[in-house]
Amino acid sequence: MRTRVTDMLGIEFPIFAFSHCRDVVAAVSRAGGMGVLGALYFSPEELETELKWIDDHVDGRPYGVDVVMPASYAGADLDVDSPEDLVQRLQGMIPEGHRRFVEDLLAGHGVPPLSGDGDAGKVLLGWTDATARPQVEVALRHPIALLANALGPPPADVVEAAHAKGVKVAALASTPRHATKQVEVGVDIVVAQGTEAGGHTGEISTMVLVPQVVDAVDVPVLAAGGIGDGRQMAAGLALGAEGVWTGSIWLAVEEADTPVLARERILRATSRDTVRSRSWTGKPARLLRNEWTDAWESSESPGTLPMPLQFMLVSEALRRIGRSDAAELATFPAGQIIGAVKRVRATRDVMFDLVEQYVEAKERLDRITGA
Amino acid sequence: MRTRVTDMLGIEFPIFAFSHCRDVVAAVSRAGGMGVLGALYFSPEELETELKWIDDHVDGRPYGVDVVMPASYAGADLDVDSPEDLVQRLQGMIPEGHRRFVEDLLAGHGVPPLSGDGDAGKVLLGWTDATARPQVEVALRHPIALLANALGPPPADVVEAAHAKGVKVAALASTPRHATKQVEVGVDIVVAQGTEAGGHTGEISTMVLVPQVVDAVDVPVLAAGGIGDGRQMAAGLALGAEGVWTGSIWLAVEEADTPVLARERILRATSRDTVRSRSWTGKPARLLRNEWTDAWESSESPGTLPMPLQFMLVSEALRRIGRSDAAELATFPAGQIIGAVKRVRATRDVMFDLVEQYVEAKERLDRITGA
Repeated sequence: MRTRVTDMLGIEFPIFAFSHCRDVVAAVSRAGGMGVLGALYFSPEELETELKWIDDHVDGRPYGVDVVMPASYAGADLDVDSPEDLVQRLQGMIPEGHRRFVEDLLAGHGVPPLSGDGDAGKVLLGWTDATARPQVEVALRHPIALLANALGPPPADVVEAAHAKGVKVAALASTPRHATKQVEVGVDIVVAQGTEAGGHTGEISTMVLVPQVVDAVDVPVLAAGGIGDGRQMAAGLALGAEGVWTGSIWLAVEEADTPVLARERILRATSRDTVRSRSWTGKPARLLRNEWTDAWESSESPGTLPMPLQFMLVSEALRRIGRSDAAELATFPAGQIIGAVKRVRATRDVMFDLVEQYVEAKERLDRITGA
Repeated sequence: MRTRVTDMLGIEFPIFAFSHCRDVVAAVSRAGGMGVLGALYFSPEELETELKWIDDHVDGRPYGVDVVMPASYAGADLDVDSPEDLVQRLQGMIPEGHRRFVEDLLAGHGVPPLSGDGDAGKVLLGWTDATARPQVEVALRHPIALLANALGPPPADVVEAAHAKGVKVAALASTPRHATKQVEVGVDIVVAQGTEAGGHTGEISTMVLVPQVVDAVDVPVLAAGGIGDGRQMAAGLALGAEGVWTGSIWLAVEEADTPVLARERILRATSRDTVRSRSWTGKPARLLRNEWTDAWESSESPGTLPMPLQFMLVSEALRRIGRSDAAELATFPAGQIIGAVKRVRATRDVMFDLVEQYVEAKERLDRITGA
């Protein structure tokens, strides 16, 4: 298969796989696609370890790293000395009533406190300029082929630094206007992400959004949101995209380190079991719908806080839930396509099927058209 | 182009166009597609007039009629003598606080009362078994090729009556489970309708839903929701559909009798200007987002009533708004694809472009695949 994207990045198939798991990233790249490691949960030191592992296991194939540098967030204008200083200042902005709501919710489900292993550094994650930049620095010391950014156009100097190393830059867009702004700062590939996608997402569906983004920019576009099999890959390319960006389908592959309970929940879920919610980070993200997301929509909810305050508010709670028996509160980012994920498979087999089904879908169009 | 659907119905292109306007229906069918008249707003007598007009203007090409027989609605179990009796019984079920909320909303926007031309028969529309059946009887007296039903599987005897006349039956589904139930009652074509569609709609996007429905049933499937140009048509067919069902793109064609203000609003809208709301009928429907839909989501809102009570509550208000200057309250069913409708065009030209762009999209896939 050949598009501007396969030429640009030297890959065999225009299939991009976002995953927080290095094993999945390396397996996708080895199978001819482009694995992209989500750096969000890693400190700079941890990220260094992960990327070193990928370098050793990717057989020289290209791979990418995804960071989150939101264009806007609470505290972006604070004059701070360090990430630790920023965390302290931001903690002071969280209302007591919100902390009480979270505590009451957990108490109502019998979730015990942690046994004293709080990690203040992790409550902010890579959701600010101050925390994401060190991740970018680590990433650019490795032979990555692609640096992707969610939540808006990356800062112009980050784009420049990537280009200076020969690294291409991608950014996620959920409106044609986002896409135009991203190309203005030098982004090489726009990921047009429909509302059905997991994680941070907009309102417009993939079917409607992709052609609008393709018409708005000159750079290649990837279709994201709802891409799970080769028919959806063919659909994405028919819409004008030059590749597809996938995420949720890798949550339940053999190589993924997804917790067992979460994996079982994915295999059982239908496509109606997700919801766009601000309850994770303060910006709308599609999550598994459950009693956690419902609670934040209920009449008792104090409302969510802006990014990054909401995650600072809930990060410890989410860790406590993860270690408890309260599976009914354990949510995570997931797209509507999880309804099509029915068994655990090897990453290589999922890649193979994507390509084979794509070819079948194209041959079907040939027959319909009488070509 | 050839699919099971073009063979079944004797049409040249597997393009279905839902419209409340007879001129659009006839123009689509004459151009080789399948126009489908939405019967909802018509009394049996009015529907007779519309279908007679189509018979005279469709040059013998096949066309269809769409009715609404919801599987469930308030009052479905009432033992009534007549539609008029049903209306009276249902009126008694509308709380006074809801009537006051609507009156206050209109007063706040300076909307005057009607000048005494209330039409009790129209407050119920074709949203019940009692009101839709006479529409079906009228439709089956005309040479229609297709009877479509929204909001659930049609009653088995209606399917039988249609089949006895050689008329095929289609039904809209927003989950694979809906689709299976429809096929069980004898439906010939399932319209898999994604959340981005205008009017009554579910939560799952077209990209995710269509393959799931295709895998769930043996009958041909049409892709609906977000279909506006030939790229989206190619995408729908790549997903496994054997045709596409369109709606919102016909609101602003030359032949449509859409009010001038609504047409201008459509041409100006982006794909973010719609919202799924119960404020029109009591069941979730995608509407133009404005101060009307916002008001029903506000903290002052008493909440919406179940179908058909909500429309009974708001129908006069919507007519009053339509005749007033309060354009900020005038909503109507519209899908996300209205963001791609930028000028008024002839129905025939839209049909021609759909087919031409479809062929271009397929040729693009040929080049990508190296075929």
